[in-house]
Amino acid sequence: MPFLTNTVSRRIAWGECDPAGIVFYPRYFEMFDNCTTAMFSTATGLSKYQMFETYKFAGYPMVDTRARFLIPTRFGDDITIETTMTEAKRSSFNITHHLKKDGALAVEAFETRVWVGRDPADAAKIKSQPIPPEVIAKLTLRTSS
Amino acid sequence: MPFLTNTVSRRIAWGECDPAGIVFYPRYFEMFDNCTTAMFSTATGLSKYQMFETYKFAGYPMVDTRARFLIPTRFGDDITIETTMTEAKRSSFNITHHLKKDGALAVEAFETRVWVGRDPADAAKIKSQPIPPEVIAKLTLRTSS
Amino acid sequence: MPFLTNTVSRRIAWGECDPAGIVFYPRYFEMFDNCTTAMFSTATGLSKYQMFETYKFAGYPMVDTRARFLIPTRFGDDITIETTMTEAKRSSFNITHHLKKDGALAVEAFETRVWVGRDPADAAKIKSQPIPPEVIAKLTLRTSS
Amino acid sequence: MPFLTNTVSRRIAWGECDPAGIVFYPRYFEMFDNCTTAMFSTATGLSKYQMFETYKFAGYPMVDTRARFLIPTRFGDDITIETTMTEAKRSSFNITHHLKKDGALAVEAFETRVWVGRDPADAAKIKSQPIPPEVIAKLTLRTSS
Repeated sequence: MPFLTNTVSRRIAWGECDPAGIVFYPRYFEMFDNCTTAMFSTATGLSKYQMFETYKFAGYPMVDTRARFLIPTRFGDDITIETTMTEAKRSSFNITHHLKKDGALAVEAFETRVWVGRDPADAAKIKSQPIPPEVIAKLTLRTSS
Repeated sequence: MPFLTNTVSRRIAWGECDPAGIVFYPRYFEMFDNCTTAMFSTATGLSKYQMFETYKFAGYPMVDTRARFLIPTRFGDDITIETTMTEAKRSSFNITHHLKKDGALAVEAFETRVWVGRDPADAAKIKSQPIPPEVIAKLTLRTSS
Repeated sequence: MPFLTNTVSRRIAWGECDPAGIVFYPRYFEMFDNCTTAMFSTATGLSKYQMFETYKFAGYPMVDTRARFLIPTRFGDDITIETTMTEAKRSSFNITHHLKKDGALAVEAFETRVWVGRDPADAAKIKSQPIPPEVIAKLTLRTSS
Repeated sequence: MPFLTNTVSRRIAWGECDPAGIVFYPRYFEMFDNCTTAMFSTATGLSKYQMFETYKFAGYPMVDTRARFLIPTRFGDDITIETTMTEAKRSSFNITHHLKKDGALAVEAFETRVWVGRDPADAAKIKSQPIPPEVIAKLTLRTSS
């Protein structure tokens, strides 16, 4: 695999669960959004705010996302989420998240996002711009030789 | 189309938006969850809590969902969400949501959910059970003749 | 009472409730934030976004808030929230929310907020500015004579 | 101080912030709810779910809470939250949270909660019950002599 995998470990919170006692599924997408940012932060050493300042961009909004829910998780469960960039084009990129509970895949998610900046023609709008090569380089696994 | 379409109109809230000023995408899934429930409530005349009591079930958790984000929406925008059941099997069913802004499709989402009850063998667990025929009948469009 | 009371009616959503089946209390604050905005929108006829453009300001962040929880509410409950400005100073103002279920007071909340604009010295910061007299006038009850 | 102070360190997430770029204040209450649970988990070594099983109770719902917002925090900020039980009565207890950014107090919050179990007369309802002495003992600071 050419890109690094970032792993986040966390405990499911009471407030993330619904009256069935399991995670309210929109909350999984919030976890995944945090994990995509954590992946970039691990690679660059920067918070998202610092990335905004360093790379002069305005975010990586979602274009298309899908998730499959295989095993329910409930408050108090300790889980891990493995996040990997699977493809990077000029401005858009794909991400996969594997949320695991006791080693078993509980939720699998796919994302297509686009790297954007402020539109020069209208600062109130956003416009795709190329992902900085430096960011891609930092996400790429290097094999020692 | 054999099933009714339920339409919800609402205004995007400040707290649903992120620092880019547009809806934080996990919030769309929360809107869609509300719209699936609104569809059942329109058809049955019951709140979700009343449905639990009437149909002796425990919810319709998500199995698989996907959303495509075409046009961003921001706080103050008035939108409509059209929700339709597109297929009903024994226990699982598919839903489509069309979120529109000024008549244009802004977000399109697909859901596969399953109708569940408490597992007779272990009340702490849930287990799929047939969707009540009465619920399907109430969701089905009738043509006058 | 010198200021108008705005009333919002809504149904408690599944996703607003926790594993105890009742509203996860941070969600009440989100409802109240929406109700404060709804009060301004009723008075001015403008969405929050339109208010930003009309009154050249940047929001009314919270300074101090308190809530007392008297009766739990659960998914499917139909509630009303009555929102009133109780005091307006130069830049800060106080709000009270009464959330009622079946006519009984379920949650009572108090807010102190401040009307802010962008800091002329640093656009990344916010700074208090006077509440426009027009906004106060529109919130004020007029007695016919 | 007779009770231990539990400290949680975390980074503010993009999705916790609003279009002003700062934390949407209801999200602070969600952080504080997590911190109250983290305090109990540190003291007992149990997750909230494990506490439910061990102490045969049903949660510690909020009765009264207040927060004062002194310094805004934005996405990417690294903060700490210090949580302390300040008083414990038979069933109710008080908690204080101090959220700090760069060592400065940014948000201060107070909570009164009540320890509850299922009502023996109606399992759908909750009823206050005594906080287990073992839990209080584990939260109490011991001085060596």
